[in-house]
Amino acid sequence: MPQLLRVQNFCVSRDGFGAGEGQSLDRPFGHADPGAMMSWAGATASWPNRTDPGGSRGLDDYFTRDFRNNIGAEIMGRNKFGPQRGPWADHEWKGWWGDEPPFRTPVFVLTHYPRPSFALADTTFQFLDASPAEALDAAKAAADGRDVRLGGGVATVREFLDADLVDAMHVVVAPLDLERGERLWEGPDELTDRFHLESVPSASGVTHLILWRR
Amino acid sequence: MPQLLRVQNFCVSRDGFGAGEGQSLDRPFGHADPGAMMSWAGATASWPNRTDPGGSRGLDDYFTRDFRNNIGAEIMGRNKFGPQRGPWADHEWKGWWGDEPPFRTPVFVLTHYPRPSFALADTTFQFLDASPAEALDAAKAAADGRDVRLGGGVATVREFLDADLVDAMHVVVAPLDLERGERLWEGPDELTDRFHLESVPSASGVTHLILWRR
Repeated sequence: MPQLLRVQNFCVSRDGFGAGEGQSLDRPFGHADPGAMMSWAGATASWPNRTDPGGSRGLDDYFTRDFRNNIGAEIMGRNKFGPQRGPWADHEWKGWWGDEPPFRTPVFVLTHYPRPSFALADTTFQFLDASPAEALDAAKAAADGRDVRLGGGVATVREFLDADLVDAMHVVVAPLDLERGERLWEGPDELTDRFHLESVPSASGVTHLILWRR
Repeated sequence: MPQLLRVQNFCVSRDGFGAGEGQSLDRPFGHADPGAMMSWAGATASWPNRTDPGGSRGLDDYFTRDFRNNIGAEIMGRNKFGPQRGPWADHEWKGWWGDEPPFRTPVFVLTHYPRPSFALADTTFQFLDASPAEALDAAKAAADGRDVRLGGGVATVREFLDADLVDAMHVVVAPLDLERGERLWEGPDELTDRFHLESVPSASGVTHLILWRR
């Protein structure tokens, strides 16, 4: 089986923004409400941060539980990892995800500023100053034959799309507009010269867009 | 996480039949054409019997690749395992699936007639004369904390539904009528007193029905 680079469970607004304006420690998605963007996933039985039993097992749950299916590594941009910019002032920040990040694989964080690797539970974070193609080579080597997830944010997804390195994308359109912030696209039709596109509405109100390389 | 009993990728005709009339060695689904019933899965990239590269990675592929996701054992009826009836004349028959069955877990075959266990690649077949509840206990113990797949056929699914042991079902309605054979249901509404139901049409022409316990 070929190793794919896959974008999974990437949430955008109806008007194409993946994050709002003004990311900060208190507002990882800027002015966008992450709850409103991600509520479709939080309502499912397979949501990794779920603390109560229950949750839906319908269509949305298939996408939530596919998050780790056959994934051996993740690549993310520095702005997904944290709100800091420039050289690392200290190494205390270890991401948004607490002591048990949901990745449970090697994670490669793209940054121009060096920082030592560290592990949290089953996840290891490594910091790379590399081109998209170089980062993908490193992630595939670490993924033990499995696929690589491209975790975002928007600028990172755009960069890998521009380099034509993305094999498959699952993008979730939340039923809200953001009007400003980081734009993934005007709409998915921008990519249909290179990708097949299926659009699947869910009972929860979101629409799942599935794209894969032609 | 609780261990669930899940029916997955179970194909029925529009008029509710899971198999046609007259199962035989040449016709495992009786007068039904298994190609027509299963073509939605065979067209996907994740279909385990795929010999050529390619295949679709749209909605249908999510269901195909979920087949083994977090599954630790399968229970199947004897009529899914083979066309024989009554005591085993010999032990040469080892299922329809060749040298590498797609299950890759312990498989429990329900039969009133004893037969020794055997292994084929990563799959082991064990033969049980047991009630549905007893079979489920054995399969859960073998599944190492993961879920158990209820593989069919129709009579076996009905038996476990009647015993109220099924937690989740994914049933695929193929766009054809069979008119006779083994009937799963008149329609999914028969189960909505006990199950949530989502109906998701696919671009391939099938409709995915997802049911999970209320």
